[in-house]
Amino acid sequence: MLKTKMKNISIVLYKPKYAGNVGSIARAAKNMGIGKIIIVEASGFDHEEMQQRSTHLAADVLDKIRYCKNIGEALGKFNYIVGTTARLGKARGPFISPRAMANDIVNISQKNKVALLFGPEDTGLANDQMRFCQSVVTIPTSREFTSLNLSHAVMILCYELFVASSGEAQELVPTLARSNELEGMYGQIKTLLANIGFLNPENPDYWMMHLRRFFTRAGILSREVKIVRGICRQLEWYAHHKKT
Amino acid sequence: MLKTKMKNISIVLYKPKYAGNVGSIARAAKNMGIGKIIIVEASGFDHEEMQQRSTHLAADVLDKIRYCKNIGEALGKFNYIVGTTARLGKARGPFISPRAMANDIVNISQKNKVALLFGPEDTGLANDQMRFCQSVVTIPTSREFTSLNLSHAVMILCYELFVASSGEAQELVPTLARSNELEGMYGQIKTLLANIGFLNPENPDYWMMHLRRFFTRAGILSREVKIVRGICRQLEWYAHHKKT
Repeated sequence: MLKTKMKNISIVLYKPKYAGNVGSIARAAKNMGIGKIIIVEASGFDHEEMQQRSTHLAADVLDKIRYCKNIGEALGKFNYIVGTTARLGKARGPFISPRAMANDIVNISQKNKVALLFGPEDTGLANDQMRFCQSVVTIPTSREFTSLNLSHAVMILCYELFVASSGEAQELVPTLARSNELEGMYGQIKTLLANIGFLNPENPDYWMMHLRRFFTRAGILSREVKIVRGICRQLEWYAHHKKT
Repeated sequence: MLKTKMKNISIVLYKPKYAGNVGSIARAAKNMGIGKIIIVEASGFDHEEMQQRSTHLAADVLDKIRYCKNIGEALGKFNYIVGTTARLGKARGPFISPRAMANDIVNISQKNKVALLFGPEDTGLANDQMRFCQSVVTIPTSREFTSLNLSHAVMILCYELFVASSGEAQELVPTLARSNELEGMYGQIKTLLANIGFLNPENPDYWMMHLRRFFTRAGILSREVKIVRGICRQLEWYAHHKKT
């Protein structure tokens, strides 16, 4: 029976604000068998406060935290990135539930490195970080108060993954393209679409967001990235060739 | 479809030690639509610390906390009491999972008042409190570190109840493109790729098959077909425009 490969799961915290939350997250991660945390664009957290919340049993997770200066570097080696948002009602969907995410990740985690990406406590993830994500999870809550404590949100996702780690047999997912391969492809598509006048120069990311969602929903493979880039190259060559 | 009656659910904390945890629990409860907390054999928590963790949006839950001097009094009016423990391997079972508990409570909560009972942070519930319980939940964890933060444990149970309160954890599947929309798109792509010399005229379907696989794996939507066709049209226009 297929189980989530917990060792292929990492938690990526974008600009967390509070040492206490980082400590609580280390504890939650360790409770659920996850050992890797990456912190992006934030550092200098009070170690004592972190350790108090993590307890000494999760001190090893704290000590191994990797700090990255930018999100591209942090996510570059991951094959599948799961974003999290409380913001329903904005046109950034589709959003999936933590349980559906966990069911997907059972398969994906077999051969792929998976990042769970969380935004800052006060604002959550912005579009600039969301665009890296292959899927976006919204934790169901009461309408009266939708904002979860960051460590609670992390715990719910880790818990669902852990429960799914004893789950049903499903089909095997092959190795997906890495984030830096995807970004290279998106950059090339964006340039091409700008050149042919398809993208509005004032808001080039509107259509790109739709394309990103579509490509990543498919779970695009390395070799498919190469096909798409080959087509783009040929289109560029053709356009240039016609010009001269 | 039957849903958990969240208004019939209360959280009962037996001898909690830390004001911060009580505040976090108030927030978690409110996030999941639970408004009632009872604290047994403990009081005098620092209000500022509680409120900092609950945030002002859960201040009403904090203000309504009922303090009881003994557990019999606290639990007397409840019809069904769910205990929680991390202690596996002791002869106090049978233990059920949070999910199984939530499924049971859907029915039970229709006509019964349900208490979720949690013990102190360090020791958990002892037999003296366990004997009140109709069922006992153990949250699944990694064997390396089984002890959850109290507010995390509360959150997981409340979350499972909340998910069960919305009936099935169903995903909204949007309407996919119809076959004739897809075929129109493939025809247009094939023409374009032939025109720019990307497709081998002797075997045009080789790359097209790869593209078809990719597009259909994604479950492409109507509006996405329109975007792709818009891009193709623009590319054709651009190529033609350059020519003349």
